[in-house]
Amino acid sequence: MKKYILFLALMVLIQPVIAQDYLKLLKNYPTAEESNPIKMGWMQGFPPPKDKIISAADGSFFKFPASRYSVNHMRQFLPTTVVLAAQTNRYNFTVDLDKAIDNITFTVMGTNEKITWRESLDKVYADGVIVLHKGKIVYENYFGGLAPDGTHALMSVSKTFTGTLGALLIAEGVLDENKTAGDYVPELKKSAFGDATLRQILDMTTALQYDEDYNNPKSDIWAYSAAGNPFPKPAGYKGPENYYEYLETVKKAGTHGKVFAYKTINTDAMGWVISRVTGKSIPELISERFWKPLGTHHDGYYQVDGSGIAFAGGGFNVNLRDLAMFGEMVSNKGFFNGKQILPAKVVEQFRAGGNREAFAKAGYTNLKNWSYTDMWWVTDNKDGAITARGVYGQTIYVDPVAKMVIVRFASNPFAPNQANDPYSLPAYKALTSYFLRKK
Amino acid sequence: MKKYILFLALMVLIQPVIAQDYLKLLKNYPTAEESNPIKMGWMQGFPPPKDKIISAADGSFFKFPASRYSVNHMRQFLPTTVVLAAQTNRYNFTVDLDKAIDNITFTVMGTNEKITWRESLDKVYADGVIVLHKGKIVYENYFGGLAPDGTHALMSVSKTFTGTLGALLIAEGVLDENKTAGDYVPELKKSAFGDATLRQILDMTTALQYDEDYNNPKSDIWAYSAAGNPFPKPAGYKGPENYYEYLETVKKAGTHGKVFAYKTINTDAMGWVISRVTGKSIPELISERFWKPLGTHHDGYYQVDGSGIAFAGGGFNVNLRDLAMFGEMVSNKGFFNGKQILPAKVVEQFRAGGNREAFAKAGYTNLKNWSYTDMWWVTDNKDGAITARGVYGQTIYVDPVAKMVIVRFASNPFAPNQANDPYSLPAYKALTSYFLRKK
Repeated sequence: MKKYILFLALMVLIQPVIAQDYLKLLKNYPTAEESNPIKMGWMQGFPPPKDKIISAADGSFFKFPASRYSVNHMRQFLPTTVVLAAQTNRYNFTVDLDKAIDNITFTVMGTNEKITWRESLDKVYADGVIVLHKGKIVYENYFGGLAPDGTHALMSVSKTFTGTLGALLIAEGVLDENKTAGDYVPELKKSAFGDATLRQILDMTTALQYDEDYNNPKSDIWAYSAAGNPFPKPAGYKGPENYYEYLETVKKAGTHGKVFAYKTINTDAMGWVISRVTGKSIPELISERFWKPLGTHHDGYYQVDGSGIAFAGGGFNVNLRDLAMFGEMVSNKGFFNGKQILPAKVVEQFRAGGNREAFAKAGYTNLKNWSYTDMWWVTDNKDGAITARGVYGQTIYVDPVAKMVIVRFASNPFAPNQANDPYSLPAYKALTSYFLRKK
Repeated sequence: MKKYILFLALMVLIQPVIAQDYLKLLKNYPTAEESNPIKMGWMQGFPPPKDKIISAADGSFFKFPASRYSVNHMRQFLPTTVVLAAQTNRYNFTVDLDKAIDNITFTVMGTNEKITWRESLDKVYADGVIVLHKGKIVYENYFGGLAPDGTHALMSVSKTFTGTLGALLIAEGVLDENKTAGDYVPELKKSAFGDATLRQILDMTTALQYDEDYNNPKSDIWAYSAAGNPFPKPAGYKGPENYYEYLETVKKAGTHGKVFAYKTINTDAMGWVISRVTGKSIPELISERFWKPLGTHHDGYYQVDGSGIAFAGGGFNVNLRDLAMFGEMVSNKGFFNGKQILPAKVVEQFRAGGNREAFAKAGYTNLKNWSYTDMWWVTDNKDGAITARGVYGQTIYVDPVAKMVIVRFASNPFAPNQANDPYSLPAYKALTSYFLRKK
């Protein structure tokens, strides 16, 4: 069980660490080609060879390089609930591939190394990438274990879905961003979330006594993960039985609203508020408000805990083209597939960003002048580019001025995005420039 | 874990027991209306109340009446793999509802009680029913916890899919029905399956030292279920680690080919042969050969064991309309949605039936003159009606002369079909007569 917990923890980890350190560490790891999960044979064969069988229970399924298989097959290891795709009015992208994109060249951040877009995809262990320009697919590529009709773990990009849902419900007047989580969920009243406003939770400026220090066995993350573990609790376990029970125990440490502090439990607290008020689960709402109106083709799914509660902070798994539909909808001020799916003012709010001063205090050296709002990362880009980030390299990157959307699944050996940012962030800028010149 | 195993065992149980005994026992149980899983609140609420939380690990999810929730949400409790639906050329049924069907009346088997079709659906704890006549939906109704876009456990109707796949591969020359399982899977050579032909396995006339006596804690079914349990094995467990390893241990008891003996392990042995020869999993093949060409709308899924092996004998979960497509394809001699999906001769082989003498020896008092072939139950009906049967009342019933197909999901308090046959079998006959008169 401890190892399963380690996996859960790694799924959501994102920390201010020096990116260039990862570039050095990565040189000791098998390349994307060498760690291709199909070639490595994880869970392949009838039956698979003993040394190729991996499981969630013993944590083996999420050790690199086995993790490169697991990100595409989470449901094979864990209980899940469905996010139904559209049955009618399904959207079909126009595909107009631009072969020049592979050769777009840029300099790896913090180095003098020149690299092409195509080369960078291997460096970040990409599993699938789609680039949209003016709503058309201009680039689409699948690697590793991902098939075009497959699904992939979004990790913390899941947070962006919960945050967008929260922002939508606020815009509709269903929720009030100035009310506290305690106002909506009485069980949270005595916790740190009790007097935190929904705005503070959505922007992660809550002051929580909760650390995600993976080197400390007494870190709060272990207790959280143990609560959400869908497998039988160990004998004598007396802790919280599910995500919600854990959230009730979180204590306050300081004053809300001052400092950005990226903590997964904010998202699950927001998920609880949303479900309590709407009477619907996060997977149901994501289907109803996004997956069906977008015209998606493939059911998505969420991992669930032992009480059937979806892991709003990191448990969503989706198809890549479907994810691209969501990105394009946001890029297009909420309008997609013939419908206004998100009010334009909600998207403008994302692009305006959160409290930059509060963000700066968090010390992300690679993300200067960024901010965080509604569980979107808001870049320093003058076009108001915003991005969703998940560990191991999951990405939605939206530049509405360049009319560019990038969606990417990846399975980097390292969880923190600092491990791929030196390749990813300049790559996004290079593509932005390319499309702005084309325009 | 023991209780989880009990569930697995119950999933596949079907035994010759006197049906009328069940009618008496059922009088002590809550009615379909009283046990409606939505009204009972299983896993409903954020979080669900403690006494409404059920789980696979402790077996609570499959005790009646909680089982009425679980049959619609197996993936929420267990690891699964996808059976991809069609993305193109999706089939849409013509709906032409016949309101007279609800009032079709018949006599409950073994009694003088008259009952209508509609009343009988409550008696069998139906979760969803579709009746097709001449390929159109003439009756469609959902009850309990099943939504039209939901999925439901097929239980042993899963066997019929594996059997149909086997028959198809034999017709294509990929498999030879006269060869043995040992010829294809060397690991099975020393087991009872070693010298059993594929025909004997598909018709379940193998002589296996394997009993499904649920009252005996030393019964083989427990060892089988323990092997396939996807949860961590208990400390000190030294038995087989997955379904296949268990199959290797099965001993022979008698001579193959003489007596019909309905044993789930035949289906998993067939699944192993199919996967070994094709290099594809059962879920992949079901998608490729049936779900995609049929034009289904909803992904199905299989439960898997700890090695990722699909439970070919009982683990398939599907949408009701999608199941109706499969039934109609068989009714229509394999042609559906513009394609010959199964060779007509394969369907003729189903209808011709298996060894009736071997079947009679098994002592099914309600199923006189029936037989079993390619994992289809072949009725005594002169039209060559065939049926797929799963515990708790899962059904496909195909009468090609009446041009009638019935598909039904249910969650009866009792596993054996003997508990619902007194209502079901005369109901099918009554509908057959109705459509034959109409024709």
